[in-house]
Amino acid sequence: MTQTSISDILNPKSVAIVGASDDLAKWGGSILALLQKFKFPGQIFPVNPRSQRVQEYPAFSSVTAIGQPVDVAVVAVPNDRAVDAFHDCAQAGVKAILMVTSQFAESGEAGQQLQDTLVDIARKAGIRIIGPNCMGYFHSHADLCLLNSQALMRNTVLQKGSIALISQSGALAGTMLARAYDIGTGFSFCVSLGNQADLEVCDFLEYALSDPHTRVISLYIEGLKAPQRFLSLLRQARAAGKPVLLTKAGRTDSGQRAVQSHTASMAGAYQAFEAAVRYEGAVIVDDPLELVMQAVAWAGLPAPKNRAIAVFSGSGGGGAVASDLIDEAGLEAATLSADTVQRLASLMPESSAHLPFDLGSVPTSYRGANSRWLQDVVSTMMADPGVGAGIFVMTTQPDMVGTAETIVAVNRSGDKPVLFVNAASSCGNEAAEKLRAAGVVNFGSIKDAIRALSHRLAFEQHLGVQDKAQPGFSVEQVHAMARPWPDGLVSEYQAKQLLATAGIPTTVGRVATSEDEAIQAANAIGFPVVMKVMSAQVSHKSDIGGVMLNVKDEAGVRQQFKALQTALKQVPGAAFDGCLVQQMAQADAELLVGTHWDVQFGPMLMFGFGGTLVELQRDTALLPASASRAAIAQALTGLRLYPLLTGYRGRDPVDLERLVDLIHQMGQLAVHLGEQLSECEANPVMVRGNSILVADARAVWKEQI
Amino acid sequence: MTQTSISDILNPKSVAIVGASDDLAKWGGSILALLQKFKFPGQIFPVNPRSQRVQEYPAFSSVTAIGQPVDVAVVAVPNDRAVDAFHDCAQAGVKAILMVTSQFAESGEAGQQLQDTLVDIARKAGIRIIGPNCMGYFHSHADLCLLNSQALMRNTVLQKGSIALISQSGALAGTMLARAYDIGTGFSFCVSLGNQADLEVCDFLEYALSDPHTRVISLYIEGLKAPQRFLSLLRQARAAGKPVLLTKAGRTDSGQRAVQSHTASMAGAYQAFEAAVRYEGAVIVDDPLELVMQAVAWAGLPAPKNRAIAVFSGSGGGGAVASDLIDEAGLEAATLSADTVQRLASLMPESSAHLPFDLGSVPTSYRGANSRWLQDVVSTMMADPGVGAGIFVMTTQPDMVGTAETIVAVNRSGDKPVLFVNAASSCGNEAAEKLRAAGVVNFGSIKDAIRALSHRLAFEQHLGVQDKAQPGFSVEQVHAMARPWPDGLVSEYQAKQLLATAGIPTTVGRVATSEDEAIQAANAIGFPVVMKVMSAQVSHKSDIGGVMLNVKDEAGVRQQFKALQTALKQVPGAAFDGCLVQQMAQADAELLVGTHWDVQFGPMLMFGFGGTLVELQRDTALLPASASRAAIAQALTGLRLYPLLTGYRGRDPVDLERLVDLIHQMGQLAVHLGEQLSECEANPVMVRGNSILVADARAVWKEQI
Repeated sequence: MTQTSISDILNPKSVAIVGASDDLAKWGGSILALLQKFKFPGQIFPVNPRSQRVQEYPAFSSVTAIGQPVDVAVVAVPNDRAVDAFHDCAQAGVKAILMVTSQFAESGEAGQQLQDTLVDIARKAGIRIIGPNCMGYFHSHADLCLLNSQALMRNTVLQKGSIALISQSGALAGTMLARAYDIGTGFSFCVSLGNQADLEVCDFLEYALSDPHTRVISLYIEGLKAPQRFLSLLRQARAAGKPVLLTKAGRTDSGQRAVQSHTASMAGAYQAFEAAVRYEGAVIVDDPLELVMQAVAWAGLPAPKNRAIAVFSGSGGGGAVASDLIDEAGLEAATLSADTVQRLASLMPESSAHLPFDLGSVPTSYRGANSRWLQDVVSTMMADPGVGAGIFVMTTQPDMVGTAETIVAVNRSGDKPVLFVNAASSCGNEAAEKLRAAGVVNFGSIKDAIRALSHRLAFEQHLGVQDKAQPGFSVEQVHAMARPWPDGLVSEYQAKQLLATAGIPTTVGRVATSEDEAIQAANAIGFPVVMKVMSAQVSHKSDIGGVMLNVKDEAGVRQQFKALQTALKQVPGAAFDGCLVQQMAQADAELLVGTHWDVQFGPMLMFGFGGTLVELQRDTALLPASASRAAIAQALTGLRLYPLLTGYRGRDPVDLERLVDLIHQMGQLAVHLGEQLSECEANPVMVRGNSILVADARAVWKEQI
Repeated sequence: MTQTSISDILNPKSVAIVGASDDLAKWGGSILALLQKFKFPGQIFPVNPRSQRVQEYPAFSSVTAIGQPVDVAVVAVPNDRAVDAFHDCAQAGVKAILMVTSQFAESGEAGQQLQDTLVDIARKAGIRIIGPNCMGYFHSHADLCLLNSQALMRNTVLQKGSIALISQSGALAGTMLARAYDIGTGFSFCVSLGNQADLEVCDFLEYALSDPHTRVISLYIEGLKAPQRFLSLLRQARAAGKPVLLTKAGRTDSGQRAVQSHTASMAGAYQAFEAAVRYEGAVIVDDPLELVMQAVAWAGLPAPKNRAIAVFSGSGGGGAVASDLIDEAGLEAATLSADTVQRLASLMPESSAHLPFDLGSVPTSYRGANSRWLQDVVSTMMADPGVGAGIFVMTTQPDMVGTAETIVAVNRSGDKPVLFVNAASSCGNEAAEKLRAAGVVNFGSIKDAIRALSHRLAFEQHLGVQDKAQPGFSVEQVHAMARPWPDGLVSEYQAKQLLATAGIPTTVGRVATSEDEAIQAANAIGFPVVMKVMSAQVSHKSDIGGVMLNVKDEAGVRQQFKALQTALKQVPGAAFDGCLVQQMAQADAELLVGTHWDVQFGPMLMFGFGGTLVELQRDTALLPASASRAAIAQALTGLRLYPLLTGYRGRDPVDLERLVDLIHQMGQLAVHLGEQLSECEANPVMVRGNSILVADARAVWKEQI
């Protein structure tokens, strides 16, 4: 028995509908009607034991009774008849089942058991399952529609396209289809996955990578079954030049609660998802309808050449509003070069020859009988080398249809995108129809168009994922050091030893268990020193007053040694393991660099400003721990306090290469020590000029996984 | 001659159209046609010297030739005939001119001169002007339409409504009308103001305050002619219970550039605008189409009762997406109380009885023949006391029309708003039509609906503007202190004296001009001390190494005194005025509190965290300097690092009342010293527990205004 492939499922030669009906309000009725309407060229077998014919087709009492090979069976019977239907399919040698019925795993324990039973039957028979609790799928290039949605019922053709849509929500898939059809684009294939009892997002994502009809891949995700496989596929998509755009629900507690009650997915910690997925070059959009519009723009228009956006509008006000929104989104409102202004001399008075371009500012006498006037204007301005992309904001203005045609023509002839915003609402319907017919996306809001450009630019500027760097330390040595550690929190001294072994500079320190030892240590290190309490029971020493800075002399050492012992008494049951005497590092900035093991995405690397205030500062970056030096350097520049490192107000510039190295080494430690290094944190990392020193560190070790 | 009022202009008994035409593509043609179509009950006089009749009316060769009183004359002739037209109107005793023609002040100097000539003619004749370079105005309750827009040409009636729209952009006014008509709402009146050569935003805003037809006021603003009058009107609007929503263009450099080239407005510094306008309780929306949708929601729906938003959707995915977006917008996705769950027992299985509510999760058997089922469900959930408002996300789902009718009914019967989002695109058109017909707003995106709730909640939670507090200091004394100051930067010592006089605690300090004096001062204050260079030429001492912290003994004082002199040598031409010796204040947090005089909005008050890093931290609040203690306290809580003041990680909680007092006194200083106190800054303000001390201060004084 050969394994059924996704290609088999998307290109079946025959389809059976178990629960086929004459009633178009029922699943088994509407799916049959859609197969007919969109002229599926394969065989169609309705199964309904109580009818001789269903719609125009002869009906069968069971799948087995068909007596011919059935590639795909759609099972649309109530769930108390699902087991029988699956046995029937198994006996008939069906390759794949599309199980649309709901009330399975998503509804509780009884449903989960029933679902498990179905999976068991299918697995034994070598049948692949899509669903249950889904809306089905279609493959436009095979004229196959097994997806039940209002968006398809209203159409007369199954529009072909180059965007794949893979969704864990059926209803959202429907809304996404509706939006895409409204703006004039079709899909290569679309699948609603429901509970993913067998086939899941990754299976269809993998297929999309090699599907010749698919150029852009769009995903709606609630939870991942196989996070590592997912990341690997994103990487392959990037390599194949197929952009992946996705919406992830369950980013917040509320969203996660909604998702868990919905399709029995595990939403996972969103921050790690976001970091990992972005690192592989996928684009995250927070609203599925925006996702569709962006996917359509990506499939049909070239990428912006740079961040400067030319604004065109029928109204000065529209141009001003768009310019503000562009600035606020972190892009730039483009201006024209003197050369371009000169080139525009025959088209308008000089007072109008600037961006944002206000169509209304040009006296009508300039436009004359030349219907190409606007096209010449927009093309000339777009050709300015300083301009990276354009946005045309159509207000309620004269000749909206002609304006739309112009934008279609400009997009066909140019190599930079001009995004069209229909701000005229239903007054702009006819214009929007021109764009629709030409397959050029039109946006309903200026902000949506700006976000589309912004996301595309981020995608274009993605650094790419480099081959795994060799760590700058001996993997054996760090393993040897950590292996004997007991379970749980590791002492600062041990954590710093680990960092030092990995080539990370730490403040010099000595353990002292008596006042005299502490004085010896301080004299050896040199005053002033820092003194810190040591206790396996204390994770955040400074919170209990367990860190004494700037201890200047022997008397101070004696005094603070006692004070540390007193401070520890606040913590019930905490044992005094001594005192760590360290050099006092000077800093213009205190950073944190930490790693943790994420249950879905493995080792993650966080770094940022704030030292002990890091939670309040909210000025950190998160990357996979395997991140390249280049990605680390790029993320550093995105931090709010980054200018502190580059010579802010008379400070010495920090040796950024060494800082990036330190962060990279921390990441490599997490990669190579794996799941056992549950957490590892260097905090604060004291930074001033060429001096970069880890002043404190902690780690949590898992003896057993 | 009595002054023409806005009411006269909105309720004219007769209108003349100068430049009336049979050609509907021309201004003088379309306006005449609109007056007819919407059945203006007053007299209509076309003026056209070359025709006997225009459209169906007898035409006149001039306004003077009409021979009857003309309240409003629309002037729609090319600008080279404008002066003649104005003289004609003046001679005929016209009360107001609507001047639609462009190429005046907005097009350059020649245009400005021509505009000035027109204003001069009008002023002498007691004529008020709307425009030039505008699209006109309408007053629906008088059946008067003098606004030329595609949005009106497509309508058969001039829909009456309760929203006033006052706009500095004609084309944007048109797009806003189009959007409102699409979602089923009309306006009380709408005016496009163009260059505001005479009548301006404030004149119509003032009228709207007392207009019985207007409940909500919406504004599109580029620049203000009379900022203080504007603020005063906003305050009156708030007192009158009429919400003002506005979009301001020219927030950013790019937007400002666009605005200046557009209607010759001065955009002004946006931050001060935002702070001043928000303080008066107006709502700022960054996109004019969103503004319209929000205004429609405000006019038609009750305010949310609290921040917990109930989400309803035809799809679990839709609910999850909305819940995430609600959390990310700083609102809460509501949950149901056990009571409410119990009340839902007859309507659905318990597994479905939660928020976000997924309509699709309820087996159809529950809905039965009861068409009121959904209404019962939504009403019961909305009645939960924990729920403040609702959002219904309609995906491509069965019975969308019935769903829309349900939401209309729920909104009619309940006292909490349920915002409807049509996520089904054109599949939802019929449903949207039901809402339109009922005048219930429908949103095109989930984010738009959430922002509408969020803005409304901010409006409801506005603290209100209190009466001016008495300053806690003698106004005469601070005046007496500042009056002798020379022009420009004031020394730290003087600035602190001013603060001290205003009851603001500052670090103790003495001026020393020699090493010996410095040692005396340090001994008097007590070690350790801070030493700072004094020079009228140096504004930011720490940037040149002119601040020595933690000087511990006499030897240190000698050494640092020399070091300060050396440091000052970096600044060419800077004179050494001595050294300030101060107590060394300890701090858990360093704040900045500053004031400056804004050219449009007067004294402004800024405060926040960061000390010398304040620009990087970007953790500040801006208020009018006259802000109340309550407003200051509320703004403080919004700062990112605010938890540092309330006992973060073992720190002593700061005496917030004293801190608010300090900030309030700084504001009052700026209010009472007025424009001469150009800038005043306390930075850093050292804060630890009950100790709040200004460690450094600066001020800039203007001897002459």
